[in-house]
Amino acid sequence: MNERAFAAWCEQQRGRVETALADWIPVDAPAHLGEVMRYAALGAGKRLRPLLVLAAARAVGGLDIAALRAACAVEVVHAYSLVHDDLPCMDNDRLRRGQPTAHVRYGEARALLAGDALQAFAFEILTPADDTVPLPLQARLCSLLARAAGTFGMAGGQAIDLASVNCRLTEPELRTMHRLKTGALLKGSVRMGAATAIHALSAEARDALDNYGDAIGLAYQVVDDILDVTANTGQLGKTAGKDAATDKPTYVSLLGLDGARALVERLYQDAMQALDLTAPLRVDWLRALAGRVVHRER
Amino acid sequence: MNERAFAAWCEQQRGRVETALADWIPVDAPAHLGEVMRYAALGAGKRLRPLLVLAAARAVGGLDIAALRAACAVEVVHAYSLVHDDLPCMDNDRLRRGQPTAHVRYGEARALLAGDALQAFAFEILTPADDTVPLPLQARLCSLLARAAGTFGMAGGQAIDLASVNCRLTEPELRTMHRLKTGALLKGSVRMGAATAIHALSAEARDALDNYGDAIGLAYQVVDDILDVTANTGQLGKTAGKDAATDKPTYVSLLGLDGARALVERLYQDAMQALDLTAPLRVDWLRALAGRVVHRER
Repeated sequence: MNERAFAAWCEQQRGRVETALADWIPVDAPAHLGEVMRYAALGAGKRLRPLLVLAAARAVGGLDIAALRAACAVEVVHAYSLVHDDLPCMDNDRLRRGQPTAHVRYGEARALLAGDALQAFAFEILTPADDTVPLPLQARLCSLLARAAGTFGMAGGQAIDLASVNCRLTEPELRTMHRLKTGALLKGSVRMGAATAIHALSAEARDALDNYGDAIGLAYQVVDDILDVTANTGQLGKTAGKDAATDKPTYVSLLGLDGARALVERLYQDAMQALDLTAPLRVDWLRALAGRVVHRER
Repeated sequence: MNERAFAAWCEQQRGRVETALADWIPVDAPAHLGEVMRYAALGAGKRLRPLLVLAAARAVGGLDIAALRAACAVEVVHAYSLVHDDLPCMDNDRLRRGQPTAHVRYGEARALLAGDALQAFAFEILTPADDTVPLPLQARLCSLLARAAGTFGMAGGQAIDLASVNCRLTEPELRTMHRLKTGALLKGSVRMGAATAIHALSAEARDALDNYGDAIGLAYQVVDDILDVTANTGQLGKTAGKDAATDKPTYVSLLGLDGARALVERLYQDAMQALDLTAPLRVDWLRALAGRVVHRER
């Protein structure tokens, strides 16, 4: 793999996503709602989910304008989830991406509403009135995003997370929580990118991409658990050591630091092996993104 | 108009919507999230929005199964908005439909998450994996719902509402707030029902239905303002007198009780006149629903 070409591609795609989000999230929304939405979505994010969408779309030769919309929609859902997750009744966090969280800056009510508006806005992004994205593809992308974000996806995972504070979870229980809470939207990103394929994928390729999404989705959260212990607040841009302080079950508390690291390595291998079964797709950037997921430091 | 036939139709459609919602909102969602979602959506609602969708679909000879899904999706968005609106950081209300509000019953965090999950679930309802609803129609319904619920719809209206406590609004400002906060989802209901038309509507009919939706959307909220003053908590199933207590601008504070009632009557006439321009659509139930909106007592 050409590391320089990949870095350049990431840089370029991140720029496209950020420009599109800045163009699309309204400046003139009623009662400064747009200001809060922009604060939440236009900050210094890693844009991992958009990159996964765009790398999956590239792998399948997908419709680029649809992939850009899917990338932005996923990022907007991620942004809304952080705003709500940081609220006092949830994680009560004051720092995010090195900045005051939305409710610290704008008050709880406006943060709540901005999160709600962002979730709706994600579906607006996916359903443009012009004819740039074919209607059947719009429907498919809405379906994938709703399911990744909803009851048996991200929101369901948050509910388990909430219910399991001070609980000792088994590994399968913790896995289910992480798969939903973080994994569903990451896997959904890969699926949405793949859905932009102009020619239908083989069932084998689709399953392989799903397995890749599963593996990196879980790996991401295990790395999160590790970083919460090993990194400091300055590096993370959010409060470190929160899991232990709030007595949340994590892969580190369950397997220890070495065990968690070994699991990340195994999941990385799983992701790589899944991609071996996707030929003739161009999966080199998906491979590289898996590397970023497991080696990230924030 | 046949009042008995209309009442029977309402009863039957309400039953269909409630059965579908009870079937579709998951019982087995993670960490009892489904229980909170069901508590919020399956209570004793009037189901006005679903009836508007279904009456508009009947008027245009729409695809029935799509209309039922649209009706349920709109009701689910309405239910989520009530849950979030009742939260302590918003209206801080403890009573809804004669029952404890969701956060009183289940705690703030679970209420927040259930609201989030319900919003995503509305889009799941609109995008079934089977082939009962054509994909282009799924996309169109998602587009209409997202825009009715979002920044320049319901969420935007809530933001204005929040920002205008203790403010004196002009009539145009108050109208904008009400049009977005309540009107957008009511008008969106009519639009979604009309979108299920198997044959495209004329531009005249579409505009007329939009004008109908505008008029009843605003009328609904003016009646709300009147009832907040004239009805008691037992009748409303929610706390009466809240607007004055929280010093919120309303049509009653702006126009007085008689002025507000006169406005409702004028909006009712506007709605009726709009429907005169929809021939040959079967709009009798839309006429009857407008009557229900202005004569409701809760």
